[in-house]
Amino acid sequence: MVKTTERWIQSQQYRKWDLRCLKLQPLSPVPSDIEISRAQSPKAVDVLAKEIGLLTDEIEIYGQTKAKVRLSLLERLKDQPDGKYVLVAGITPTPLGEGKSTVTIGLVQALTAHLSINSFACLRQPSQGPTFGVKGGAAGGGYAQVIPMEEFNLHLTGDIHAITAANNLLAAAIDARILHENTQSDKALYNRLVPAVNGVRGFSAIQLARLRRLGIYKTDPDTLTEEEVRKFARLDIDPSTITWQRVVDTNDRFLRKITVGQANTEKGFIRQAQFDIAVASEIMAILALTTSLQDMKERLGKMVVANDKKGEPVTAEDLGVTGALAVLMKDAIKPTLMQTLEGTPVFVHAGPFANIAHGNSSVLADKIALKLVGEKGFVVTEAGFGADIGMEKFFNIKCRASGLVPSVVVLVATVRALKMHGGGPNVRRMKKLSGGCCNLQKQIQIAQLFGVPVVVAVNIFKTDSAAEVDLVCKIAKQSGAFDAVPCNHWSAGGGGAVKLAQAVEEAARQKTSFKYLYSLELPIVEKIRIIAQKVYGAQDIELSPAAQSQVDRYTQQGFGNLPICMAKTHLSLSHQPERKGVPTGFILPISDVRASIGAGFIYPLVGTMSTMPGLPTRPCFYDIDLDPITEEVKGLF
Amino acid sequence: MVKTTERWIQSQQYRKWDLRCLKLQPLSPVPSDIEISRAQSPKAVDVLAKEIGLLTDEIEIYGQTKAKVRLSLLERLKDQPDGKYVLVAGITPTPLGEGKSTVTIGLVQALTAHLSINSFACLRQPSQGPTFGVKGGAAGGGYAQVIPMEEFNLHLTGDIHAITAANNLLAAAIDARILHENTQSDKALYNRLVPAVNGVRGFSAIQLARLRRLGIYKTDPDTLTEEEVRKFARLDIDPSTITWQRVVDTNDRFLRKITVGQANTEKGFIRQAQFDIAVASEIMAILALTTSLQDMKERLGKMVVANDKKGEPVTAEDLGVTGALAVLMKDAIKPTLMQTLEGTPVFVHAGPFANIAHGNSSVLADKIALKLVGEKGFVVTEAGFGADIGMEKFFNIKCRASGLVPSVVVLVATVRALKMHGGGPNVRRMKKLSGGCCNLQKQIQIAQLFGVPVVVAVNIFKTDSAAEVDLVCKIAKQSGAFDAVPCNHWSAGGGGAVKLAQAVEEAARQKTSFKYLYSLELPIVEKIRIIAQKVYGAQDIELSPAAQSQVDRYTQQGFGNLPICMAKTHLSLSHQPERKGVPTGFILPISDVRASIGAGFIYPLVGTMSTMPGLPTRPCFYDIDLDPITEEVKGLF
Repeated sequence: MVKTTERWIQSQQYRKWDLRCLKLQPLSPVPSDIEISRAQSPKAVDVLAKEIGLLTDEIEIYGQTKAKVRLSLLERLKDQPDGKYVLVAGITPTPLGEGKSTVTIGLVQALTAHLSINSFACLRQPSQGPTFGVKGGAAGGGYAQVIPMEEFNLHLTGDIHAITAANNLLAAAIDARILHENTQSDKALYNRLVPAVNGVRGFSAIQLARLRRLGIYKTDPDTLTEEEVRKFARLDIDPSTITWQRVVDTNDRFLRKITVGQANTEKGFIRQAQFDIAVASEIMAILALTTSLQDMKERLGKMVVANDKKGEPVTAEDLGVTGALAVLMKDAIKPTLMQTLEGTPVFVHAGPFANIAHGNSSVLADKIALKLVGEKGFVVTEAGFGADIGMEKFFNIKCRASGLVPSVVVLVATVRALKMHGGGPNVRRMKKLSGGCCNLQKQIQIAQLFGVPVVVAVNIFKTDSAAEVDLVCKIAKQSGAFDAVPCNHWSAGGGGAVKLAQAVEEAARQKTSFKYLYSLELPIVEKIRIIAQKVYGAQDIELSPAAQSQVDRYTQQGFGNLPICMAKTHLSLSHQPERKGVPTGFILPISDVRASIGAGFIYPLVGTMSTMPGLPTRPCFYDIDLDPITEEVKGLF
Repeated sequence: MVKTTERWIQSQQYRKWDLRCLKLQPLSPVPSDIEISRAQSPKAVDVLAKEIGLLTDEIEIYGQTKAKVRLSLLERLKDQPDGKYVLVAGITPTPLGEGKSTVTIGLVQALTAHLSINSFACLRQPSQGPTFGVKGGAAGGGYAQVIPMEEFNLHLTGDIHAITAANNLLAAAIDARILHENTQSDKALYNRLVPAVNGVRGFSAIQLARLRRLGIYKTDPDTLTEEEVRKFARLDIDPSTITWQRVVDTNDRFLRKITVGQANTEKGFIRQAQFDIAVASEIMAILALTTSLQDMKERLGKMVVANDKKGEPVTAEDLGVTGALAVLMKDAIKPTLMQTLEGTPVFVHAGPFANIAHGNSSVLADKIALKLVGEKGFVVTEAGFGADIGMEKFFNIKCRASGLVPSVVVLVATVRALKMHGGGPNVRRMKKLSGGCCNLQKQIQIAQLFGVPVVVAVNIFKTDSAAEVDLVCKIAKQSGAFDAVPCNHWSAGGGGAVKLAQAVEEAARQKTSFKYLYSLELPIVEKIRIIAQKVYGAQDIELSPAAQSQVDRYTQQGFGNLPICMAKTHLSLSHQPERKGVPTGFILPISDVRASIGAGFIYPLVGTMSTMPGLPTRPCFYDIDLDPITEEVKGLF
């Protein structure tokens, strides 16, 4: 009782963390990411957890440097006010990279290690596909990194593996069910679905739930009429409508289109299918948007995998697999605690695709971090792709799911990327920096649509001149940014982002008037049009007949008031990747419209979206090695 | 220095563990496995680790109840004598189950919790496929279990996920490489494989190794002749010879035979392929047989995935992926420490398929456990299927890889299974117990071929009469068993296996004369014949032309002196599952012969082996659920 009260009192007080920061001694030239990561000794994660106010029974340690944090903390700290919520977004990306993750990490290193303000970075977990394919790691870079970077980039605490297992169990269940329905009579099917166990015949809980959805309120399996038996036992899935795909967390291009079921044992029920990369699974989107175990279980059950032959949606719940999926995901729902190079806390949790899904880290990690930093602290989270995609989805989808209100947007730009937006294909020769700033200007305006102040972070490269950086900052401020500051965290660590941190702190003191861009009550097409016109600058949208018929179907099925998750190229504000800067006058073509009902959004496809990357001729695994004596990983960068 | 010396001295002394055992209060009737598991509170795994002599820096904790153990311990304790090494094997299995895992766990509970003798159980990690398909858990059962059973049965510490990731990275690399070779000139291919990075062009370490294998000793990429460029850049894989398959850890029957590469981006390079269940991956067999990180890396590199168009083997090393595979497997190589219901230590590590692979847990777990228990302690490990398969492979493959010498074989039998071996299909009506004991007799004789004493454990069911049990024990002893004892650990915990433990202790004092069944120097066909005749009781073997041609190829490729891993049904000593008891006079047909060069064995196929289970009409996931409030898993049994 006394202990409970003490805990309660302690939980109500804001306290500045007594955090031992790790010292950095940046070298010049800056060594490779993995060399920097390895040169720093991380704190034991249980020490870090204690420093930031986590109780011993609120963490589950995974090795020396990673720990999962239990959701029970949200209940303990429910009356504690949230910290400030900062989103890092970017200009329209170029192949050069802008460094959003690096800014995110540099900013928290500056806030906590240099300004002694509680802060947390919340990052997405990277897919292993690109890690071994073309991209290398995603733990930030230079002197703004999450360490150990190889732990961050590899299995982490197994969340993506859990998603893969859950996704593929559901996929296997769909095809197996179709086979069993097609090869058995109603009665045989029913007898197998509801067998007598030790002489007793009963429905399982999930079968009773299905009966109730069918309007059958019986509980004794022997009392169903023939018609009821048929309704219960047959899902009658129309194979041509299956939208649920299998996944692997590997860049395996040969699985983009496949034919399954060709063994004799499957009796000719072949069909065309595909594998997506695991992070494109709807279950990943659910993990990122869910707010509790109960909520996750409900979302998993609601996932629509196909239509039946009457055009009605068939769900994971109908297949009887909700509980099993929840069991497979029971640990994945807990965010993973790691640390930056300067010993400040980081959550790594969820990493949904940024085109067919919403490309943001998890709501739960943000919520827990906002409690842990306390009222005067900061949580910095990052949205994938440019602000037109990642930030728009952050506001309209993620903030809707969480109910959280952002305080500041940090918009990351680089001189070299802006030059590219101002000119032709060869960036080296371009001096069209001021022309390219139109993209920055537009992205600032997009953020302002949501009523949130913008701080522009100009991520400095050694090739940038002072005049160029000044010009970008000047244009940014003229375009409505609250502030614009250069930052050097890549070469200097948190010390190089102190000005950015101060600007963010100042911006967070502004009164915000956060609002969503559209009302959920609007028709699907209207919501798409608002995003296309107000965010992308399109003249209008044009739906293909297929897209229109999907819109009609979803509306009729009762899914019309979900938010919209646009699947559009990230390389242009328009649908045409080669159109840099701020394209105008275009009609945005919507080729198809799909839905992730469990995750809770409709996703219109603007052109074709690849959900499975490939391996190039020389994948980066050629450089990756393990020293069998020191156990050190080499070549991951 | 002083500390090092102290550690050394400490490491040399046998000490009886000061282990706090967990009390059991068995209920009658025996509750479900998960209810029993949940009713017991496991010790914190770091406490257990300390009790059995592990140092703090030798473990990596995963949550409260699991920890990985570092291989460095083998170096620290290298001068300490090994404990006694006990194998648990079984009679020819029936659908009723004999309870080998339960005996394994009951035996260590008896040894440590009731007789105060240091002991360790070493178990295989189960695949999640069957867990959600038809089988339920594999953590033992009743009052002889590993706890928490849901942790044991689910992701554990991610080893199978790591295997899946490594396996599928290699699979993706094969198809992508074929595509890139087929669509590029020698020069383009070479330029991409050996690009200039910041103006400097160089081979990666793994490329230099390949050059040396090709007899090219140059290190400057610009000095290779056209012919050398071609030899280096083209693996020239013959797609029809690819033996490397993709895997998932799900029962997904629709992936048994598939066509891949049907998207336009793959330019028509379609081919037929398949997915196996993850535990059937050669990488799983390697994990189970490897003795160190260096050894694992070498084995991974040596894996043959196909032949080139000249018929020469193409390896993972040729594809440049060895280092990446080792990196993916760097944590999986460490055994996972858990505990029994009575708080005694258990290693869970590796779980290769028992037909196309050798069906035994890992060499490393056994080696570490043998050091930890000390000279007077016991390590109890289990072989899959009947003794004719699991035990034969344990001796001829696993003991060869490890160099370890077993002290005792425990052969598990049940009255009801022996009745089935003595009679027809319906076991309930069979009274042919004494006839069925021929199978037990034969399996005892097989163990004796290897010169190891046998203790028969009769796993008691409540339907067994005392006379039946006495008869089995009598026949067992007459057949050459050192002893034969009934055991009740399922209903009573370790207390029910004390007599078994005493018999095992006594048997371990016998002088053994362990020997392998065949010399590796013999021709492949001769080795197969020895197993078929001496173990299975076949009259002879008959190779199909395909099998013979594979034998010739492997012999010519230099793989002739590997041990043999028979892929045969486990349901009969013969190749015909319906032939119970001790079939005689049969000719064993060898339909094909394949090789796992990295794992280090040749595997002849006796008939067709399914490497992908399917989901039944009502998979057991219908009963599995998660309570969102208590976070308890239900319905896993």
